[in-house]
This record gives sequence, structure tokens and C-alpha cells, in this order.
Amino acid sequence: MSASLNWVAPMAEFSWAERIDELRQQHLPQIMDVLDSTVLSGSPDGSSLVEMTRYHLETGGKRLRAVLPLAVADALGSDPKNVVAFGAACEILHNATLVHDDLQDGDRIRRGAETIWVKYGEARAINLGDAMLYYTLMLVRKVPGSADLRESLSDRVLKETVRVIDGQEREFLLQQDDVPTWADYVKMVEGKTSGLFALPLAGAAEIAGASSQLVDGMTRAAGHLGVIFQIQDDVLDIFGQKGRERPGSDIAEGKISALVIHTLENASPEDSAWLRDLLRRERELVTDADIQRATQLFLTTGALDFTLAEIDRRAALALSEPALDEAPQLKALVSAIVDLFLAPIAELKHSRENG
Amino acid sequence: MSASLNWVAPMAEFSWAERIDELRQQHLPQIMDVLDSTVLSGSPDGSSLVEMTRYHLETGGKRLRAVLPLAVADALGSDPKNVVAFGAACEILHNATLVHDDLQDGDRIRRGAETIWVKYGEARAINLGDAMLYYTLMLVRKVPGSADLRESLSDRVLKETVRVIDGQEREFLLQQDDVPTWADYVKMVEGKTSGLFALPLAGAAEIAGASSQLVDGMTRAAGHLGVIFQIQDDVLDIFGQKGRERPGSDIAEGKISALVIHTLENASPEDSAWLRDLLRRERELVTDADIQRATQLFLTTGALDFTLAEIDRRAALALSEPALDEAPQLKALVSAIVDLFLAPIAELKHSRENG
Repeated sequence: MSASLNWVAPMAEFSWAERIDELRQQHLPQIMDVLDSTVLSGSPDGSSLVEMTRYHLETGGKRLRAVLPLAVADALGSDPKNVVAFGAACEILHNATLVHDDLQDGDRIRRGAETIWVKYGEARAINLGDAMLYYTLMLVRKVPGSADLRESLSDRVLKETVRVIDGQEREFLLQQDDVPTWADYVKMVEGKTSGLFALPLAGAAEIAGASSQLVDGMTRAAGHLGVIFQIQDDVLDIFGQKGRERPGSDIAEGKISALVIHTLENASPEDSAWLRDLLRRERELVTDADIQRATQLFLTTGALDFTLAEIDRRAALALSEPALDEAPQLKALVSAIVDLFLAPIAELKHSRENG
Repeated sequence: MSASLNWVAPMAEFSWAERIDELRQQHLPQIMDVLDSTVLSGSPDGSSLVEMTRYHLETGGKRLRAVLPLAVADALGSDPKNVVAFGAACEILHNATLVHDDLQDGDRIRRGAETIWVKYGEARAINLGDAMLYYTLMLVRKVPGSADLRESLSDRVLKETVRVIDGQEREFLLQQDDVPTWADYVKMVEGKTSGLFALPLAGAAEIAGASSQLVDGMTRAAGHLGVIFQIQDDVLDIFGQKGRERPGSDIAEGKISALVIHTLENASPEDSAWLRDLLRRERELVTDADIQRATQLFLTTGALDFTLAEIDRRAALALSEPALDEAPQLKALVSAIVDLFLAPIAELKHSRENG
């Protein structure tokens, strides 16, 4: 009756994508329940913070940070119930960063709905993000086990989150930089994006009783997964649809994406200077024609193909993490996460590579 | 050799004000050291968050939240060294709220220096406040004692801080309210101001091994102390100087202060409507003449005298907290804290009451 019984089935029949869906269906309702009840009990009676949190969460989202710990626990043969509170902590933390990010970036729409700062005002969006950062730690307190385990998990939350905030800092500094480099980009992403994957993956491994080598190995693998996710997100903004106002909103916001970095370094001096100016322009002054020209540059200078190749390189690095060899199911999960991350751009990637 | 030996001296010779100064001189450098070293070790190498934290802290401040735990420990005969890390936690938490408050309120100057959002931009001010919220909990981790004690202190930090954020929420909601009441004002202040006094006072009592009755009694006394502090702060903005741009900046910001609440309820309908409009005006459009007229209203409608009397009523309530009877030194400290809070308006209070 163990939760990991499915593992006994031959690998050929097993699909992590299906198993993740199963785990999501089985445990996500509980995760969202403990999240809601913690927000309610952790706030003063009648607090507006409860309504705002519910509004934000009800706009949807993939709940990826909630679900990943379930998969890790399952891969390690541990009961996914043990990571329900931790999954909720990871999910609300991720959403705390979204609430503040949307305000920082001036994004008005997320998941097709008004962002918190648009609906409730800028000052109240700051309040909500602050409260969510603390709901996160209230949820860590609900992880079953010893006080020492929870202290260690809290440390992990604090450390990874400051790394995420530092990544945000690096993003703003990069925008002011005249010659941003690929190395700067990676440093930024390994903070702002990888931290929020390292936390659910390594934290869940810790709860499941994995060795410290394996936990650290998951942190390193998550570093690569974060870069893969971010490059995918950067590519999607230009070549896909993300439920935001329009394609290319990263350009309008002046974001230094993977595509931008490579283009600034490899386009002609004229094109490079034009792109630099475009990114510094007020977002209202960026036209669809500008975004089309930038998109052309990303294609002609090879930025798109370079970033797609970098994804493959990072995937290989994540999977060659030696510590994962002691847990083949976890290694298979890492591989499945790569596929999951790449699904939104799979068609684009296939068509670039094959024709 | 006990830290509380001074207590043995006759009460007539003992002054809490002097003792607090002594404790500040003896232990504040250590508190600021552990704060700085935690920010440094808790941030990625070369993080801009370190520089920003230092800039903010170097603008000064009374360090009241750092020093109060020392006094509580001392009053309970416990070694003040035990609350050094906790005092640092309270201090950085207070400053986290200031960094976000200044942005929310549009305050450009604090302690005579540019506020963080003016110096580093709005987005980076959000980052810094977020990071400081988490440095707070990193510092709680350094409190000596059991993991259970630290879990309990973390819970206290989380709960009181969400209460503070909820108080901020109530403040914004109050500004939108057409008929804000004194009861609403008190509810707001018991969140946004009292929480940040309850934490150092009750938390330090807990670290010093006080009974849960006494710890809870300190939380209730701190509720009154917070109201006293806030009324004093409200009065000072109009009738004193706070190192901000000009007197009456609360009015320009549209804040619902104690003086405003009482005046809205007690002035003539015309004056009340005028004041309501004034508070909703863009801050740039509020003139010195407007602030003078509002100040006159606060005097003629009795708002100033009412709020000063409310201070005395709250002080009596704080000191009649039954749990404090088991710790006379702590009761004397609460009385000294009232005096400390009222020092900036002592002369004004004396002249209103006696002339």
C-alpha cells in the first residue's frame, strides 16, 4: 500500500508525466486546503490579506512548486503526505515573488486576470507579498517531524529566498549595465529562478530522508533546471503566448533575456545599439514593429538557436549530476521535469532543430 | 556578578532611563555586529543587498527595538547577552517595515537622508524590505537555547509581523473610508505599531524564562504602549520636528492620525468636510497654509487635548496589567518606556496640561 508502489511497474510502462498528474489529483486539494487554513489562522480576524491571497491564488497557475515535492517524495519511496505542508509553503513563496514581481515590472495582467497592484493598489501589493513571505514560514512549521528538521527547512527557505531576491537585484543591475554578459545573465537566473526550484526539490528530498549528498545534488541539478526554465520562459515571451498582454512584453519592459544577451553580443554594432536603446525606451513607446524587428534579430543572429542548444547542454549537466546515480527514480524525475519545462516550446524547438 | 545586580540598589537611586543607556552602551555594538554578520553570511557573495542594508542602517535611528529586549532581560534578572541576536532580529524587522513604509507613503527623507526607494529605486526598495524580513528570521535562529524556544520565537515573529502588515492594510482602508472612527484607528494602531513593541518586549521575556502569564501580560501592555507611541508620533508630526521634510507631512500624505480622527468626529460639518478633502488632495497640492489651518482645528476642536488624555489613560491601563505584579522591575520598566516614548512631546504635554 506504499505510495511508491507504482515504481515496481516496469520502467517502460511508467510515465513521470502521468504520475505527476496522479499525485497532483490526489494531493493538490489538501495542499491548497492547508495553505488556505494557514493564511486564515495566521492573519487577524477579518484581515483583508485573506481576501487578497485568495483572489491571487484563484487566478490559477500551474502549482508546479506545490506538486514537485510530491514527485520527489514519491521518487524516494516516501509518503507524499509528508510534503503537503512543504508543497504549500513553496507554492505561497512562489506567489509572494509573483505579487512583488508584477509590481516591480509593471505587469498588469497575469493568468488573464488583473494583477494585485492593479486591483488593490501598489501599497497593498507590497503588503500582500510581505505577508505571503511569512505565511511561507508558517507552513514550514506544519511539516511533520522534528523541530530540527523544521529548523533546517526554514534555513533552506531563508537562504534560497534571499538568493532569489539577490537574483532580482542582479536583474535590475543588468538593465543598467551597458555591456551585460552571458555570465551575468546566468548568475541572475541561478538566483531568481533556480532558487525557487532548488527549494521544493532539495527540501522535499530532505523531508524524505535523502542523504545530504543527494539533497545537495538536487540543489545543483535545480540550478540547471532553473536556467532551462528561464530560457524557455524568455523564448516563450517572444515566440509563444503566456497569457500576458502581448508577445514581447519582456522587450517592452526592457528585460535582459537570454535572447537579448546573445544578440547584444553577436549582432552588428548598429543592430546591437538599436536593441540597447529599445530596451531602455519607456514601455508605452515600444511598438509592435519594434518587437517584430527584435524578433527578426533573435533569428538572424542565431540567438534563438544558441539558447535552444544551451537548454540541451544544461539538461545534460543536470542529468550527469553524480549524486543522482544513487536514486535512479529521482534522475528519471529530473529528466521528466526538463520535458515538462520544455513542453510550451517543444514544437518550436523541434522545428528549429529539424528544418 | 549578575547583570541585574543594580536592582539591589534602593529604587530611589535607580533610573531605568540611565540603565537603558548603560545597556545600550554595553550591548548595542554586539547587536549591530551580529546583525551585519548575519546579513553578510545570509546573502550571496557580492550581493547589493548588503550595501543597501548598511546604507539604510547607517542613517541612524533610536535602535529602540534592539535595546528594549536588553532592558526586559535585565529586569528579569537574565543575562542581556541572551537577547543580543533577538534584539538584532527586532531591529532589522522594524527597519524592513520602514523601507517598505517609506515607499508606500512616498516619504523621500528619513533621519535626514534619502530613503531607500529614492536612492535605489522603487523596485529595489521592495527587494530590500523582502530580504530584511528574512534576515529577521535568520537572526532568530541565532538565539541561544533550544530548537523549541526558537520555533516559538519564530512563531511570535511571524504572528506579530502579519499583525503589523494587517495594521498597514487597515491604514490604507481607513484612508478610503468616509467616516473613519476612533475604534478603527485603535484597531489599525494595535496592529501596525503595537506589534513591533509586543515582539521585543514579550519575546525577550520568553527568552528570559518568564511565565506564559507574564509573557502574555507584556503583549497586552505592549498593545497600550503602541497606542501611546503612535499618538505621540501623530502629535509630533504636527507640533514637533521629526527630521522629515516639514511639519504636517502626515497631513500631506493623507494619513488618518489620532488628531484627524477626533477632529473629523468633532469639528463643524464644514471644517470636517474641508479636512476630509484636504487629506484626499495630492500631496504636492497641500500648502503650508492648509497645514496651519488643520493645526488650528486640532487645537480648537480639542483633538490635541483629547489625544493627550488618551495617552494617560493608556499608560494607566498598561501599568494595571495584573500579570506585571509578579515582576515589579518589569512594571517599572513599562512605566519608564512610557516616559521614553513621551519625551519628544513632554514639554508640549506639560504646557497644555498646566497652562
